[in-house]
Amino acid sequence: MTAYARLEQKFARIATLNEATSMLGWDAAAMMPEGGAEARGEQIATLAGLNHELLTSPAIAEDLAAAARPNDEWQAQNLTLMREAHLRATALPQELVEANSRARSKCETIWRSARPESNFAAVRPALEEVFARTREAAQILSATLNLSPYDALMSQYQRGITAADVAPIFADYETFLQSALPRAEELQNQRAQEALPPGPYPAAIQESLCRQLSEAAGLNFAHARLDRSAHPFCGGTQTDIRITTRYDESDPLSAITGVLHETGHALYEQHLPRKFQRQPVGEAAGMATHESQSLIVEMQAVRSDAYLAYLAPILSKAFGQPITQAALKRRLRHVERSFIRVEADEMTYPAHVILRFRLEQALIAGDLQVADLPAAWNDGLKSLLGITPPDDRQGCLQDIHWYDGLIGYFPSYTLGAMAAAQLMSAARKTLPDLDSALAQGDLSGLVTWLATHIHSNGSRLGFNELLQAATGEKLNPKAFQNHLTQRYLS
Amino acid sequence: MTAYARLEQKFARIATLNEATSMLGWDAAAMMPEGGAEARGEQIATLAGLNHELLTSPAIAEDLAAAARPNDEWQAQNLTLMREAHLRATALPQELVEANSRARSKCETIWRSARPESNFAAVRPALEEVFARTREAAQILSATLNLSPYDALMSQYQRGITAADVAPIFADYETFLQSALPRAEELQNQRAQEALPPGPYPAAIQESLCRQLSEAAGLNFAHARLDRSAHPFCGGTQTDIRITTRYDESDPLSAITGVLHETGHALYEQHLPRKFQRQPVGEAAGMATHESQSLIVEMQAVRSDAYLAYLAPILSKAFGQPITQAALKRRLRHVERSFIRVEADEMTYPAHVILRFRLEQALIAGDLQVADLPAAWNDGLKSLLGITPPDDRQGCLQDIHWYDGLIGYFPSYTLGAMAAAQLMSAARKTLPDLDSALAQGDLSGLVTWLATHIHSNGSRLGFNELLQAATGEKLNPKAFQNHLTQRYLS
Repeated sequence: MTAYARLEQKFARIATLNEATSMLGWDAAAMMPEGGAEARGEQIATLAGLNHELLTSPAIAEDLAAAARPNDEWQAQNLTLMREAHLRATALPQELVEANSRARSKCETIWRSARPESNFAAVRPALEEVFARTREAAQILSATLNLSPYDALMSQYQRGITAADVAPIFADYETFLQSALPRAEELQNQRAQEALPPGPYPAAIQESLCRQLSEAAGLNFAHARLDRSAHPFCGGTQTDIRITTRYDESDPLSAITGVLHETGHALYEQHLPRKFQRQPVGEAAGMATHESQSLIVEMQAVRSDAYLAYLAPILSKAFGQPITQAALKRRLRHVERSFIRVEADEMTYPAHVILRFRLEQALIAGDLQVADLPAAWNDGLKSLLGITPPDDRQGCLQDIHWYDGLIGYFPSYTLGAMAAAQLMSAARKTLPDLDSALAQGDLSGLVTWLATHIHSNGSRLGFNELLQAATGEKLNPKAFQNHLTQRYLS
Repeated sequence: MTAYARLEQKFARIATLNEATSMLGWDAAAMMPEGGAEARGEQIATLAGLNHELLTSPAIAEDLAAAARPNDEWQAQNLTLMREAHLRATALPQELVEANSRARSKCETIWRSARPESNFAAVRPALEEVFARTREAAQILSATLNLSPYDALMSQYQRGITAADVAPIFADYETFLQSALPRAEELQNQRAQEALPPGPYPAAIQESLCRQLSEAAGLNFAHARLDRSAHPFCGGTQTDIRITTRYDESDPLSAITGVLHETGHALYEQHLPRKFQRQPVGEAAGMATHESQSLIVEMQAVRSDAYLAYLAPILSKAFGQPITQAALKRRLRHVERSFIRVEADEMTYPAHVILRFRLEQALIAGDLQVADLPAAWNDGLKSLLGITPPDDRQGCLQDIHWYDGLIGYFPSYTLGAMAAAQLMSAARKTLPDLDSALAQGDLSGLVTWLATHIHSNGSRLGFNELLQAATGEKLNPKAFQNHLTQRYLS
């Protein structure tokens, strides 16, 4: 057996352990009684420890040193990704990994009470510790991976795109927004305001609709489940996807659009190349790419005129209340300057991401101190959206990410939204009947196109390479601006 | 750190991996979409492989060789159990373990279609292979553990009791049954036959009742869940118990008694000594002991006159149908000679176990050939119960155990039933108000007594030692006979 073949076996074992961890994580969020939390923490930590041991084992190091570059393009990329995973796992000293883990865990716990109290001072020292340890790790990874410290962090979530790529794209969007947002607001104010009936919208009916629409969008429930959890996500494994959501009986659309968002993630996972199942090259290409797949379903397809025309009578019938396409548009395509990222519309959402992208770079570079974060946040939001949060709860305390050590993640959301628009534009060119299909709730043409151009490529290509191959060019922020112009400014 | 302390760490890690496996097993039975089965098999096999590597690692062998016998009685027993686990794991050559695993898996698959077709010939070669491989393993374990081959198998499920202990106990029961069964049938025929209302009994109401009664029996649902699966079981971990059942809308009692049976198992797990959590000595003392805990709840407490008097009005109210204590007795305390073990009443059930105990000993000893099993089965049942199965589906094909390689397991069921009667008799002596408590649905006195005398001992004591300490004598089959005499012959 060749060194490369041995590596495939070893990485398959690691991936299988990760599958077990993923199922335990789903269970913890969707099923576990509260009293199981402590033992579950131990189980997941034990699997993580074994995983790290396997990934850093001398046997893997020897095989990586011995393996010849395979002729097959997929296998060659697989070997590259194996090397990188091994490098990342061995680069950081064990003490730093543990100090970082403790700092994150402590900070996140403090943040959970500091946020509702809007008490930034309470969490500041813990957040300083998180940034200090993360900066230390970023510097080591920077040397190992030959990337800037911030890029080394960002590449944990999305390989192949750097802050230098992102900065001009975001600057361009900022310029666009300065004129587009006031115009969109003005047009919106001139339009009739048709509201949804007041409800209630029973959770059981919402749940059944969510499943029906997810299935219609292409999700195969012989390999998937839909359950409830406090924070919606898409977990599980390629052949056993676990989507979760939550139901608000005063609002029928939050769960439905949420489940269709997770369905986009799930379809990506279900269509990853089976031939490289449990290999690094068989995995999804990163978080920005993943987000492009959830957003092309949720934002591009589901919020289209055609799909909303399909959705309105289905909702009316299911809930026994009159729900018009106009009311759906008013609810799902409403632009508003607001403080909270996760509640933002698709036009203002990037402003929230741009703010975080700039601040976290400055924090990692040491150009901004954690103590100065609240003021910098408020100044930044004022400059981007013209509004100032009344308190830190609605400002720099709102997101869990930094407090849990997720630094370099935020750009993925907006890169994904932009990529989704670019992919939709390309898909439309080869699928002339797309709108008539969407008007029947039929996403199969779109999903097949995505499976061919994105999903089935696994990690063979990077973010921009995938876009280049699928659309003829790397990320071009104009596609997203064109989409917004067409939807909000015409 | 001492060798013993290192061993505690290593065995805790192994136990934590087993917890993960247990949760994945629960999920496979209760939650997993069918398309997840293949990946789940890989996940569980990978964890089993890692577990085996850890248990047989040179580091554990060195620490076991170096560890001094601790002064503490618990730790000393823990070390003994560690040695035995390591011995068992290292005794069998890897090729035999794998051949055995393949033989079991193949045989079980064939059995799944052979059973409904009553086609013993179809599964015979595969079953011969299972017995051949198991006999080989039993001989090696026999030499390693200094037990007879059959006892080496039996001790996988219940340590500390041998076929030589069991045989006279079962022979004594056989004699008892020859006179007790006809008398019980005669008395039963003289009694009024009060039937349950025809139903239907909605599954949702059954589910809510099951949870309510389990909670009332002492199960803490902050550390437990109740779900549905095709085959009821109690899984999960000490702080996160997962009970499953199935609901038959024409029968309100099968799920309720089933859930209370699993509740008995669950209470045992919840009350195991926390101080030795994830250590061999902190585990339950074996399957016969475990079964005694489920049966003392299901058979001794729940089927008592007092508890059935409590249950009748609760069921009547929940289902809106008149259900009397007399009807519950008729349904739950009805003696009948029948072919199927899992449907048997508590008096005839041991006959089914005695049959299997004798046959599997003869098969392992080579005194009986697999080809002769159907005839031997039918002869045995005729001799024990006076009836002959019309076909092998209702004879030697009915249970999965042998076809899945579970050989030496069956005695646990009846040893457990007998131990439950003996424990109940002892508990009654120190709990004079037990029946008035049961008449209120209150099992707390009984459960506290069991927690003190059985649960909290973990594996510090063996099956007979636990009985000796709790009741003043080792297993005495008369207690069970007295219980049956009182319930069925008076």
